Formats: sequence, structure tokens, C-alpha cells
Amino acid sequence: MAAVAHRIVTLTTDFGHQDPYVGVVKGVILSGCPDARIVDLNHEIPAFDIRAGAWSLKISLPYLPAGSIHLAVIDPQVGSNQRRIALKTRDFVILAPDNGLTSAFIFQAERAFVLDKPQFFGKSVSNTFHARDIFAPIAAHLLKGERLEKLGSEIDPGTLARLEGLEPEVSSGHLEGAIVYTDRYGNLITNIRAQEQNKFCQIELGKHVLTIADGSYDTIGDGETKVVIGSHGYLEIAVKQGSAASQIKARNGDKVIARWA
Amino acid sequence: MAAVAHRIVTLTTDFGHQDPYVGVVKGVILSGCPDARIVDLNHEIPAFDIRAGAWSLKISLPYLPAGSIHLAVIDPQVGSNQRRIALKTRDFVILAPDNGLTSAFIFQAERAFVLDKPQFFGKSVSNTFHARDIFAPIAAHLLKGERLEKLGSEIDPGTLARLEGLEPEVSSGHLEGAIVYTDRYGNLITNIRAQEQNKFCQIELGKHVLTIADGSYDTIGDGETKVVIGSHGYLEIAVKQGSAASQIKARNGDKVIARWA
Amino acid sequence: MAAVAHRIVTLTTDFGHQDPYVGVVKGVILSGCPDARIVDLNHEIPAFDIRAGAWSLKISLPYLPAGSIHLAVIDPQVGSNQRRIALKTRDFVILAPDNGLTSAFIFQAERAFVLDKPQFFGKSVSNTFHARDIFAPIAAHLLKGERLEKLGSEIDPGTLARLEGLEPEVSSGHLEGAIVYTDRYGNLITNIRAQEQNKFCQIELGKHVLTIADGSYDTIGDGETKVVIGSHGYLEIAVKQGSAASQIKARNGDKVIARWA
Repeated sequence: MAAVAHRIVTLTTDFGHQDPYVGVVKGVILSGCPDARIVDLNHEIPAFDIRAGAWSLKISLPYLPAGSIHLAVIDPQVGSNQRRIALKTRDFVILAPDNGLTSAFIFQAERAFVLDKPQFFGKSVSNTFHARDIFAPIAAHLLKGERLEKLGSEIDPGTLARLEGLEPEVSSGHLEGAIVYTDRYGNLITNIRAQEQNKFCQIELGKHVLTIADGSYDTIGDGETKVVIGSHGYLEIAVKQGSAASQIKARNGDKVIARWA
Repeated sequence: MAAVAHRIVTLTTDFGHQDPYVGVVKGVILSGCPDARIVDLNHEIPAFDIRAGAWSLKISLPYLPAGSIHLAVIDPQVGSNQRRIALKTRDFVILAPDNGLTSAFIFQAERAFVLDKPQFFGKSVSNTFHARDIFAPIAAHLLKGERLEKLGSEIDPGTLARLEGLEPEVSSGHLEGAIVYTDRYGNLITNIRAQEQNKFCQIELGKHVLTIADGSYDTIGDGETKVVIGSHGYLEIAVKQGSAASQIKARNGDKVIARWA
Repeated sequence: MAAVAHRIVTLTTDFGHQDPYVGVVKGVILSGCPDARIVDLNHEIPAFDIRAGAWSLKISLPYLPAGSIHLAVIDPQVGSNQRRIALKTRDFVILAPDNGLTSAFIFQAERAFVLDKPQFFGKSVSNTFHARDIFAPIAAHLLKGERLEKLGSEIDPGTLARLEGLEPEVSSGHLEGAIVYTDRYGNLITNIRAQEQNKFCQIELGKHVLTIADGSYDTIGDGETKVVIGSHGYLEIAVKQGSAASQIKARNGDKVIARWA
């Protein structure tokens, strides 16, 4: 991993903005490493939605500088005996509960560690706020240059929890994917990668049969619903300056079929 | 422009907080310039509302340190052949789509540039996310000390898109302005500048005829709706510890008449 | 107080995220001290809710590095002749209106000051935005190393405004407390400290009689409502992966009785 001289640590959580929880996590990181540089990636993952968290990490982390530490906490099982882990790739380290959040990065993991050494945690560890009591202290140790080998015990990355259904399934003549995210504009983002070599003739979502727009949002006619190639390289369903989510009444998890031409 | 040793770059967008888009933009800036210092000004501009974005910039940017770079993206026409521009004043540079967002600063523009050199963009440029693919990489180049002359082609600031109706119109005996912003407290903020020399006798909003309070919010009686001189120097319609927006049922764009005494 | 070499200043407000107010405050701090490091603790305190603000400060500030400056503005009386004060403890300084916001820290105040020297305020002072015009400029002076004695006039910390009812009242056989905060997950957080030495046998909230869970959220059965020991050391009422607030229809301020075994 590149040197961490920039001391960047990012946060991805379902804590929202209306509570002091994010601020407390920042306080612990800064208390451990006052020159940490904290970057908020996303705190509005829907509560307990590990899948949306995994998707948010998948599309965000590749854009951060090499050497960053990424703290990711969506943790419906907090307080259970679920493992807390660190996944290390060539470019970064993710600290997260072992519940599938890191699914998109397991294939590129160089090493993985279980965070099992309480001497590196906060002074007292609650049952309900591991971001503050475990992950933030570990992040501060890493930012100060401590090695993962010291902070945890090495495990096989192949044992990390993995979410099913992140990738679409290929059948004869079509792909079966899903809506994985609905953004602020109401664009319905699928997990179907837009590849020039596959020209899909149509996309089906419930009873709706949609075609792929020639270009971007602005090539959609007024009142039309179209499929565009989204900025992250996935197909998304959009309405020009409107909300596809409210017009089509679809939501995360709904099945999407893409048929070949 | 003052030296940019502080490496401050601000963000004003309609991306909201519930998606990873802001985080991705931060990642690209930090990847290009790891010691960038990113300041979130406003990510909750109503989707596609260029006018609210222009107002938010108008009242925010004068308070930032000289030498700051301001990235502003509210871009309903993203992907069209609309220009992406840089507007340079004595104190700062704004990077934005050329759709009127920078209207309030055109009069003080010293120079302007169209961002037309793909070698300074991201590795691939999507049709739908120019903040990530164009504006953030350009911001990082500027923060590292690159000169605008190299990053774009100079244009006449007089050719930049301008919003109509940002300023009120003067008629005999009255001004005709508008509600330009409704804030979290429900205060209805007008574009009518509060000037001591003009004592308006009354303000009309729809069927409501309102008078100007003697002082601040706390001089309004319980249940009263009054006009106060807002903190940015514009008249605003307020209810004491309540929401004028919900009591009067007015909204952005509604006409406001101010009559002279 | 420890040296302020890290130049950390935190913000706690009820300004929300949809307006440019927070950004403007940041701009003023950075204009006064360009190497300030601003940490957002909480901007979604319910509008005018001093009690929720006091609680948010109470649980957040102890986690920030010694030497931090904390700016806290929830200010229904802005523009009145209410004092603006600085409260100094061994570890930090809070800047706030004197309306009870700092209640939780008065007992540990070493010194207090009224901010009454306009030469250290912004160039012009509005009636409605003291965070920008008074508190942010004072914060910048402190971050640059100016001493509080110069920025204000010393007062007796015992004269600072104090909120009633932050602590529960003890009666024979029970404690009478209240819901003080409802978080994003719908957990109802009380002001009753969880102490191992007092084993409460039951908690009453309205007509609901609840028992204390053996462990964390994950020990609650499906559909059950239980009391858990929250991460900040207070009892909170929770439903497993659900919202206690919507199931029980309780809200901030509601009375909670804890009976001894």
C-alpha cells in the first residue's frame, strides 16, 4: 500500500445526519490522530441496508487516493459475535463488520484480518456502537502508521461474508439483474453493466418495456422513460428532469431483464 | 488572485446527501491533490434549481478566503453541448456549467475560460457526471498551481449565460421582486435588498399585506407574520419561531411587491 | 487548556443541511484562520430545540481532542439582548448563546466570559445570524492563539443559564426521567444513566411496561420492545431492526419511570 502521509480516512455509514453519532466517530479518530483528514462519503445509506452500502463503497472507493483508510459501518448485528474485519487491497484498507459490506472488494483482497485485540479498542466497548469503540480507534492507529499485523489476526480473505445477487445472472438470450439503488433524482440504477459489445434491444422492469437512449438524459423526450448508460457504467432507468422511481413505482431489489438484440 | 497555499475548494451542488456522488467528487479532487481542503457549502440545492444555486453562491462565496476554488454543479443539461466554464474574479475562481449559475458574479469577472481541453479531464468522461469527470480534475489541477490559461480557452465574460429576474424591477412607487429561497425555518427570503434610504411602507405577497418589523425575529409578536431585514441584507418574511412558508403557503418564485412610504 | 496546534473547531447547530448557512459560517472561520480544521458534529438539531442541542453536546464533546473549540448555535432568541458566552473547561472552549445549551458542562467550567467586544466581531453584525457575525470570528481569533481574556469579559460561570430537567429525579423506589432524544433508527433515548449497581426491574413509558434486555439490540426477540443500555451509558428503548418511536408513539420530553427491583 502507498504511504499514508496524506492521512485520509473516509466514512460510509447508515447513521444519517440528524444524530451526533457521526460527530462522535470523528472525535475519536481525531483524538487518536489529530492530523487525520476525514472525508464523509455517505451517511445516508438506508438504515441496515448492507446491499446499498456495498454498492456505495463499490462505486466510491476506486476514486479515493491510494493509501486511504475506509471505515464502513452498516451493522444490523452490532453486539453479536459477528467478526469485525480489515480487508487490505493494493490501494486501501476497509474496516467493516464482516456482513457482506466488503463483497465488491473480496476478489482483490491481498490480506484480511479479524480485529480481535481489545488493547487497540477504545477504553470501554459498548454493545451498540462499534464504530466509535472499535473501528475509529483502529483507524487512528492505522493513520499513525501502526501495521495491520499488530492490530488484528490474519484470516483467509476467502472466509469473508459475501452478499448474493450483486451481479446479474446470464441466461440464454437475456440477463437477469436488479435495481440496486435509487438516487436523489429518482434514477433507478441497475447492476447491469453497460458494455458496448452487448447491445441490448430492450430492458424489462415489471410490465414496462424500455429502450436504450441514444445518449444522455437530455436525449430523452419530454415524458419519456428511457434507459441510459449511467456515469458509473451501469444501465439506469431515467426520466428527463423527472423521477423514474415515482413514475414507474419501482424500488431497490426489483428484477430487471435485459434482452439481447 | 491571492496565492492558493491554503488549497481550499468548496462544493455547491444539487446532489443531496443520500447518494455517494459527493463522496466520489471529493475522491477525485483528493486523488489529484491529496492536500486539498474541501469545504461543503451546500449539497441540498433543490434538484435542477439553477436559480436557488445562483442565490446560494451569491450569499456564500464572499465569505470564503481569497484564493479559493469554487466548484458549482447544478446541471439539468449535463451531457448536452453546453459549455463548462471557469469564471475568475479578483478573489476566486468558479468552475460551473454555463447555465446561469454564475450570474451573480459576471459583473466582477476579470476573465473567463471554456474548459475544452480533454487532456485535463478524468481518464474517461461520462455523459452524466461532469462534476466527477471534468470539474473535479480541473479543480485539482488549479489547486496544484496550474494556470487557467493552460486548462481552458479564454472567452469573453460577456458571453456567459445569465439568469433573468435575479434583481427586482423598479416601477413608479414600488419594486417588483420575488421569493428566491425558503430556508429550513420556513423564512421566505426575497431578492429585495433592505436599504435604509428606502423605507418601504408595506410588502405584498399574494393577498397578504405585511409590514416591516422594528427589529429582529424576536420583535415579532406571537402569531404575527412580519417582514424583517435578513442576515444577508435582503427582506424576508418571517413568523416568530414558526414557519412563514407553511402559514402563508408561498414558495420560491412567487411575486413580492414592495411599496414606498 | 492544551495547545491548539491542531486548530480543530467543531460545529453544532440547528441550521440543517439544505441552506447555505453552515457553509457561510465555515467561510468566515476559514477567512479568519485559513488552516482551521472544521468538524461538523451535528447540524440537524430540531429547529430551536435547545434541549436536544445540549444533549448532543453532552455526548459528543468528551470524544474530541483536548484543545478543540466548539461552536454551538441553537438560538431562538437571536437578536435579543441575551448574552453570547464562552465557557472554558480544562479541555476545551464552547462558544454559544447563553440559553442553556452549555448546561451539561457548567459544573466543570473553569472560567466563563461574555463576548462583548465588537472589535473582534465581523465587520457588520446582523440581528439574525450571530453564528456568522460573532461566534465564527471569535472562533477564528481563538484558533489563531488569541486569549479569551482579550476577546471577552470574565463572568462567574455560576451565572450561566441552565436547563431544568436534564437529570432525572429520584423518589422512593423509583427514578423519574424523560425521553431526551429520538435517533434515526427510532431508538428512544432516556436521561436515565445505566448503572450496574442499580438493577431496575422495569421501565414505564405511558402505558407500556418494559423490561431490560440481557444484552444488545440483537438479544431482543422479533416484535419485542425492550430497554437496552445504550452506547452512551443511558437506558434506551429499542425494537430489533425497527423503530421504537413509531411502535410506541412516544417522543422527546415524554416521562419515563424506572422502578427498582
